[in-house]
Amino acid sequence: MTVEKVEQVEQVLRAIQDDYPDDFAWCYGCGQLNENGHHFRTGWQGENTITIYNPSPDHIALPGFVYGGVVASLIDCHGTGSAALMLHRKNGHEVGDDAEPPRFVTASLKVEFKKPTPHGVPLKAIGTVHEIHPKKWKVDVEVFANDILCATGEVMAVVMPSTFTKKE
Amino acid sequence: MTVEKVEQVEQVLRAIQDDYPDDFAWCYGCGQLNENGHHFRTGWQGENTITIYNPSPDHIALPGFVYGGVVASLIDCHGTGSAALMLHRKNGHEVGDDAEPPRFVTASLKVEFKKPTPHGVPLKAIGTVHEIHPKKWKVDVEVFANDILCATGEVMAVVMPSTFTKKE
Repeated sequence: MTVEKVEQVEQVLRAIQDDYPDDFAWCYGCGQLNENGHHFRTGWQGENTITIYNPSPDHIALPGFVYGGVVASLIDCHGTGSAALMLHRKNGHEVGDDAEPPRFVTASLKVEFKKPTPHGVPLKAIGTVHEIHPKKWKVDVEVFANDILCATGEVMAVVMPSTFTKKE
Repeated sequence: MTVEKVEQVEQVLRAIQDDYPDDFAWCYGCGQLNENGHHFRTGWQGENTITIYNPSPDHIALPGFVYGGVVASLIDCHGTGSAALMLHRKNGHEVGDDAEPPRFVTASLKVEFKKPTPHGVPLKAIGTVHEIHPKKWKVDVEVFANDILCATGEVMAVVMPSTFTKKE
């Protein structure tokens, strides 16, 4: 596989976050409008979901290894983004049509760190989405670096309750 | 309770991270030498451990609420720092004596988001540390904002394996 092909594969062309309305685009993890955030972008890869992320030079635990909190953040937003993708599809929509996607928040997050995550290569979070009930979705996540499984995670994502927007 | 008293209470005067040697002080979460990191600092509060953190303005999920990935990061480093404090004490040492503290990494992390975490107030992570075996410690964490329990967590912390330093 050539470098060009790898780079071509490792892009999320149509991400659910591209369709979030402005008032939901401030998340430090995945909000387009959060200038200093991670800008995670989550799309389909076959029947799975994918987020690709290049940690910045300071996102380290020790020199050479990615900080676990960044891996946890990647899993978190990948989970809510994946749930939004799946419910959006269930509702008859796809990224890029004019419909507003459903909004999710994280109820719980689990991360198992399987191996030290090497820094300096793109991380790929791959998600498998399960409907628990219409407002609650479970996303199983695997995080790969150089095709090595470095972490696994589970996100329980719930449709955003109204208490989140009352304060605005 | 006056504002002055609150501010006085809400400082960690002696943190385990202050004693980490330079090669272990680069963590984006709790490394003193990581210029852009969170600089979490973990100390004793009675028989519990405490980390206090003021999220920056961009650490939001939605305007007014703290980003879950930052809460997860706080729990993560609070867990490893708490385990280090406890094992250091078990070994006969306290923060500020000249002994080098033990180093921990996170094996697994669980976070339950109980309530939306308000932004703009200090977060307090409180830990209860349990020895599983001499190299593996479990830390139960509660995260408070304005004395409201916003998240709970569990960190399995293990003494840093040699594989982490081989790469350096």
